[in-house]
Amino acid sequence: MQTPWDYRYAQRTQRMGSSVIRELLKYTEQPDVISFAGGLPAPDVFPVDEFADACQRVLRDLGAQALQYGTTEGYIPLREMIARHSARYGIDITPDNILVTSGSQQALDLLGKIFINPGDRILVEAPTYLGALQAWNAYGAEYVSVPMDEDGMMADALEEALRTGPKFIYVLPNFQNPTGVTLSLERRHKLIELADRYGVPIIEDDPYGQLRYEGDHLPSVVVLDGQYRDNCQNVYHGNVIYLSTFSKILAPGVRLAWVIAPPEVIRKLVLAKQGADLHTSTFNQMVAYEVSHGGFLDRHIHLIRRIYKERRDVMLAAMDAYFPPGVDWTQPKGGLFLWGILPETINTNELIKVAVERKVAFVPGTPFYPNGGGKNTMRLNFSNASSENILEGIARLSRVIQEAISEKELA
Amino acid sequence: MQTPWDYRYAQRTQRMGSSVIRELLKYTEQPDVISFAGGLPAPDVFPVDEFADACQRVLRDLGAQALQYGTTEGYIPLREMIARHSARYGIDITPDNILVTSGSQQALDLLGKIFINPGDRILVEAPTYLGALQAWNAYGAEYVSVPMDEDGMMADALEEALRTGPKFIYVLPNFQNPTGVTLSLERRHKLIELADRYGVPIIEDDPYGQLRYEGDHLPSVVVLDGQYRDNCQNVYHGNVIYLSTFSKILAPGVRLAWVIAPPEVIRKLVLAKQGADLHTSTFNQMVAYEVSHGGFLDRHIHLIRRIYKERRDVMLAAMDAYFPPGVDWTQPKGGLFLWGILPETINTNELIKVAVERKVAFVPGTPFYPNGGGKNTMRLNFSNASSENILEGIARLSRVIQEAISEKELA
Repeated sequence: MQTPWDYRYAQRTQRMGSSVIRELLKYTEQPDVISFAGGLPAPDVFPVDEFADACQRVLRDLGAQALQYGTTEGYIPLREMIARHSARYGIDITPDNILVTSGSQQALDLLGKIFINPGDRILVEAPTYLGALQAWNAYGAEYVSVPMDEDGMMADALEEALRTGPKFIYVLPNFQNPTGVTLSLERRHKLIELADRYGVPIIEDDPYGQLRYEGDHLPSVVVLDGQYRDNCQNVYHGNVIYLSTFSKILAPGVRLAWVIAPPEVIRKLVLAKQGADLHTSTFNQMVAYEVSHGGFLDRHIHLIRRIYKERRDVMLAAMDAYFPPGVDWTQPKGGLFLWGILPETINTNELIKVAVERKVAFVPGTPFYPNGGGKNTMRLNFSNASSENILEGIARLSRVIQEAISEKELA
Repeated sequence: MQTPWDYRYAQRTQRMGSSVIRELLKYTEQPDVISFAGGLPAPDVFPVDEFADACQRVLRDLGAQALQYGTTEGYIPLREMIARHSARYGIDITPDNILVTSGSQQALDLLGKIFINPGDRILVEAPTYLGALQAWNAYGAEYVSVPMDEDGMMADALEEALRTGPKFIYVLPNFQNPTGVTLSLERRHKLIELADRYGVPIIEDDPYGQLRYEGDHLPSVVVLDGQYRDNCQNVYHGNVIYLSTFSKILAPGVRLAWVIAPPEVIRKLVLAKQGADLHTSTFNQMVAYEVSHGGFLDRHIHLIRRIYKERRDVMLAAMDAYFPPGVDWTQPKGGLFLWGILPETINTNELIKVAVERKVAFVPGTPFYPNGGGKNTMRLNFSNASSENILEGIARLSRVIQEAISEKELA
């Protein structure tokens, strides 16, 4: 049906593609499909009872405030808790450095809104997080992308990309979505040094940093950058804006995340958020605070680590056992994802159609590359399926891949 | 402290002013100030116990789903409930016409994002809702504004404004924020006829429509427009996008509202929302559904009407009794606000400073006028203060106004 709105869309609307993943999820929702396509946390680790108790306490003690409008910046006890939590990882801030957002997706959107003019180039890893591309496409962003190896963005290519004058660098240093790769300590130092030399600031997106299953925690880029600048007595500070979220350590359904930035950037983000949704749900902020404070979050993260580590190990072992020669994959030390690289003859955009017929799903790699590439790659999620289903799903996927390789060889 | 972000803001960021109201609220939060400045619902009518019960039921029966990621469109039982609720007011739709948003502010933001190119003119009432201006300024909107009288937008001025080729018309027909004025039935018909003649679609924002304290409900613009088009056998349908919210009939702290639009517009809004915040809190949608369905919402709206009507009556009576000659004000039949018009010699941007010193607050009128004007006007909220405080606050305000008038007469 025609409506008078049809020809009234803004130019930017033409750049808004649907998320391939969210479209794909519709086809993988049948109960007999084993899906490695989503980025969903395991629902069996959600602290449902703790939420129920917290809701009662919040509504009993603070009901009128919890259901009322709140400040745009966020609930102060929650911001204070985030500041304390950050301090333990060496991020030395006050609540004035923190804005609570409706999920990290909103943080990406607001950052795009305040920083990106149409045509601005953003430096990203290739592949990179799809949600960032989706948020920033709407503001007319272009991308300059830097290839990765098992230690993250490659330094030579990074320097070359910095010469094109990007507005900022966007990096997911820990167990990156989509690849599961971690930026090495040496590369972190190199990133900071190059960013400083070319005068380009950094957005560090860290949703998974606390979900490490082996090895030692690496200091955040924001922490290392502070140390670098102190040593250089650099006039500029606050070069790194840092994002994290409650979605992976507590529950995504409450839509709670945070941005850490210099106070002046926070003030601009607050103006943008006033226009975008006034503020994040007061009730959810209070409940998340009630659930998290007093040590529960630490205990809960331990539980998540244990379960996800087991699932990662099962998936890696199954891939070792079943996947045909010529297929390679990353060995993530944490997070929710790993990355498969198939022979160059295979197009995973075609492969997914066969896979779904055979009741197993993944996300094809191309949407994660803003400037093309990755046709033979795939993202696999290991947090959301049981060990039994991971074994069975990887076996199914192996057969689909094996057949595709054989077909190409015969052709 | 200087940071490398300082000179990297997008052009649009310069257009993002802070909401005068939210800034003002900081100064009026002292407990001894009687504030008519906010737009806050009365916390004493929040259904806290019903929320507590609903949280328990949702977490017990649907805990894993409530805390997980959800669909961008919104929780289906909630959208079905909104469709049934709308049908009772003659809005005949299916869930495909509905997007759940994180408050109406987000609906305004997403509509701006998909429709407004920099420089587009939006036709608005003068004065109009500040939140819409704040959302749309970020997309580079310009405004053509139409003056109002006690029956809403004036028809001759509306036709003149339509000749300038606005992208769409934005109207709050019921108990408008900020004036409390209701668009008369005759003017609704005229609006629809003129919008059709000039081929300009309409966004109808209706947060207060159910909070009517006297007189009969007037049909929504979206309903009348449908009837008009059926009669004309018009090829276009879906000329009106309709917004409403749970903030005023349930609780603003859960950030839940909805857009009703043609399915194709909903699909574009969904793409924009994916990039903006993925989806609105699953938990909050389920809890709001649990609280609202089965007749509770109707009973609750009756309670709100009774309490707000009493407060409106107290405020109007106090103004009649105390306000000096030369001051005029609107007689809202519903909603949360009324509008004061002072002698032209008085500037309410100055008056507010004196008022806050005297422990009473209002919002000066100028921010509600996108193209200037309204220097002698003020918005007063009557929903958030007790009757005792309304009496005392209006008495204080009367003295402040009286003194300002006397001063000007002496000068």
